[in-house]
Amino acid sequence: MSLERALELARAGRAAAESALLEELRIPSVSTLPEHRADVRRNGEWLAERFRALGFEVALVDVVEGGHPVLRADWCRDGRAPWLTVYGHYDVQPPDPLEEWETPPFEPVVRDGFVYARGCSDNKGNHLAALRAAGYALSAGGPPVNLRFLLEGEEEITGPSLPAYVRQHAAALGTDFVLIWDGSFAADGRPQLVTGLRGLLYVELEATGPSLDLHSGAFGGNAPNPLNTLARILGELKDREGRVTIPGFYDAVRMPDEAQMADWDRSPAYGEVLRRIMGARALEGEPGYSPAERNWARPTLDVNGFIGGFTGEGKKTVIPARARAKVSMRLVPDQDPQALLDALRAYVAELSTPGVEVSVRLLGAARPVVADAEHPGARALSAAYRAAFGRPAARLRTGGSIPVAQDFQEALGAPMMISGLSQPGAGAHGPNEHLSLDHFHRGTEALLHLMWSLGSPTV
Amino acid sequence: MSLERALELARAGRAAAESALLEELRIPSVSTLPEHRADVRRNGEWLAERFRALGFEVALVDVVEGGHPVLRADWCRDGRAPWLTVYGHYDVQPPDPLEEWETPPFEPVVRDGFVYARGCSDNKGNHLAALRAAGYALSAGGPPVNLRFLLEGEEEITGPSLPAYVRQHAAALGTDFVLIWDGSFAADGRPQLVTGLRGLLYVELEATGPSLDLHSGAFGGNAPNPLNTLARILGELKDREGRVTIPGFYDAVRMPDEAQMADWDRSPAYGEVLRRIMGARALEGEPGYSPAERNWARPTLDVNGFIGGFTGEGKKTVIPARARAKVSMRLVPDQDPQALLDALRAYVAELSTPGVEVSVRLLGAARPVVADAEHPGARALSAAYRAAFGRPAARLRTGGSIPVAQDFQEALGAPMMISGLSQPGAGAHGPNEHLSLDHFHRGTEALLHLMWSLGSPTV
Repeated sequence: MSLERALELARAGRAAAESALLEELRIPSVSTLPEHRADVRRNGEWLAERFRALGFEVALVDVVEGGHPVLRADWCRDGRAPWLTVYGHYDVQPPDPLEEWETPPFEPVVRDGFVYARGCSDNKGNHLAALRAAGYALSAGGPPVNLRFLLEGEEEITGPSLPAYVRQHAAALGTDFVLIWDGSFAADGRPQLVTGLRGLLYVELEATGPSLDLHSGAFGGNAPNPLNTLARILGELKDREGRVTIPGFYDAVRMPDEAQMADWDRSPAYGEVLRRIMGARALEGEPGYSPAERNWARPTLDVNGFIGGFTGEGKKTVIPARARAKVSMRLVPDQDPQALLDALRAYVAELSTPGVEVSVRLLGAARPVVADAEHPGARALSAAYRAAFGRPAARLRTGGSIPVAQDFQEALGAPMMISGLSQPGAGAHGPNEHLSLDHFHRGTEALLHLMWSLGSPTV
Repeated sequence: MSLERALELARAGRAAAESALLEELRIPSVSTLPEHRADVRRNGEWLAERFRALGFEVALVDVVEGGHPVLRADWCRDGRAPWLTVYGHYDVQPPDPLEEWETPPFEPVVRDGFVYARGCSDNKGNHLAALRAAGYALSAGGPPVNLRFLLEGEEEITGPSLPAYVRQHAAALGTDFVLIWDGSFAADGRPQLVTGLRGLLYVELEATGPSLDLHSGAFGGNAPNPLNTLARILGELKDREGRVTIPGFYDAVRMPDEAQMADWDRSPAYGEVLRRIMGARALEGEPGYSPAERNWARPTLDVNGFIGGFTGEGKKTVIPARARAKVSMRLVPDQDPQALLDALRAYVAELSTPGVEVSVRLLGAARPVVADAEHPGARALSAAYRAAFGRPAARLRTGGSIPVAQDFQEALGAPMMISGLSQPGAGAHGPNEHLSLDHFHRGTEALLHLMWSLGSPTV
């Protein structure tokens, strides 16, 4: 039971760790696409086998009909040691647009110290570093904590399986610390401890006009056009300055206090960093707030997809019968997804035109989460980062959403650390997603420091 | 040289005519899709062979590099007979959306007196009726007029070949009458003579924001989103009531006088007919004008296609790097496509947001056309309709565009008849396009009446 021995093993095991990572990255575990259903399960089984080989007690559980399985893996040192529960997910985003990938998304390659593949930063590199750390710790006599992994296959689709599992088995899953291990660094070389996550409300709008596609010459001037109407509605959901116009949208928004924002870089320079990563001509966002506030403390709305009519080469003078769009809102405390869905539905109906009907279908929702940065677990993780990366964790928020964090918080009630290894600009949901192998390896060491620190009597 | 004999032959030849039509409809001559390039030429050759078999002098001419050939077929009785030039096109619209066709678009079927296939009403049924009429006339000793067919393969893409051909060979193409044979009936049982065609301005807008697809959690709130911006721009091109908002859009519009509108049904009942054909809940259009005026005498603007971001099943929280839309405007006298393109470009730049660049690419343009309804050719066609269908032609306009009509008018200067056989609601550019076989057969007879009437000394 020696941290030093575990760290030595981690350093010696780097090549083997990379090769295991590449192997997992070859599994196209895209949870939203039915044709990859078997691949998602295969990824769960691949992980289950590795946990079993380490001596974990493993269960791959089908929780809901048609869902993807929850992987639970427990290793219990003894009843008196504290429990550390590590959350991650083995499903990935779809790789579209495929043509923008420099190398195929499920054929991982290493270039200049980075691995390129769908899912490397979100979340396979993270949970595989934790699995490897568990392996080194066990080979070194076992960590001074009990370990539990809960890895789901539905994070990217905000699926119901893990939330249901955690709530149904809350008593059996009692734990002293929860590590939500699905985040990224704040900046190059700067680890972060996430003190807040935005929530999500994701909907699909379908506009229907004429009952069939029409010739725009024969009917143009009289025909309701669902493309025009849907564009108008989406265009009006934000004003020209970037404020969301849904009535009541900002009513429940509660801004963090100054202490909570102490580590935030609220300067325009941070915006310039973002602009460079995005490769954009200019930022666009809500007036009166810094870029950091707009990303972490303010809600927003984005159109994520739009399709309708003729989209091939050349021209076709058609007024289509229907058009569809996907729209998501990032939410902050204390916005309520259900209340906003109701407000959106009423507003869309009001913005539509007489000949076009627009339906709003809920595709996913998650409440925003706030986590305390001052509990012993959070301080231990910050110290672990300092040991492995030379710097403590910045207490920041993140603009993304981890819906299950809300479930952990409500069902288990344990102090929560929200963090992760991927570098900024990792392209998590876009093409050419990549992960720093240095982060992957040093992150493994940080996790060893964390285990020993949480298991020491001084915590 | 007997009209009666030709009409007898036409009646006897109906089964053969239908089988020839079905054969042509099996050729997927989609001019806008590169993969159908060879099919377009094959359709031209199929027609060329049939004209040759009748004794026409035929040329299939490649006019511009990369274009589709112009089919010219001449039959000259003698130098003193008047020339009738018949215009048509053998290319068709793409069949999208394929899944809405009840039977495959290029496997024609006959149901309840209608043939269903892409291109049956636009324009194969029309030009094939004219080809068959020429055949019957020649078998009956030849019509009293000289005949020239000019059939293009680029109507649906507003291609340059036929316009260039007509202007380059204007002297050799001298004619007494031009029949623009690409129209439809005004209503069930009511033939029409088109006295005006709307023009067209067709553009593609491409919006580019970030240089790569972004995660909407990590960047939402600061990232320019080309989907939001393009939707906003398209939404603002018309006001809520349906008026186009491009500055100066209506400045050059000249309304027809009351005499020109004498045959127009300007009642709301006509709107109700349109609404039923469209299967829409309500009409949408410019306030202050009747449905007929909105379709024939007022310009309009429609979004014909929009694509961007994630459009598959489920959800993907992406802010995409780019989005594209297709937009067309129908123009009326005396609007000028080039002036409106300039105005649109300036307006789009003004409506865009700081982080999004929007390009406007011209895909096609055609000026509006006005045709005289009182010349001898127009009167002869009206009488021919009365003979074949029991009713004279209504003098109406049409909301569609036939770009080449402008070229014929300017290059040849001959009186022009714009008309055609397809029934209202034929689904010309949508799924399940269909054509009344009764129109096809009686239209063939009407063309025989027209030939004999134009060749008689009293014209």
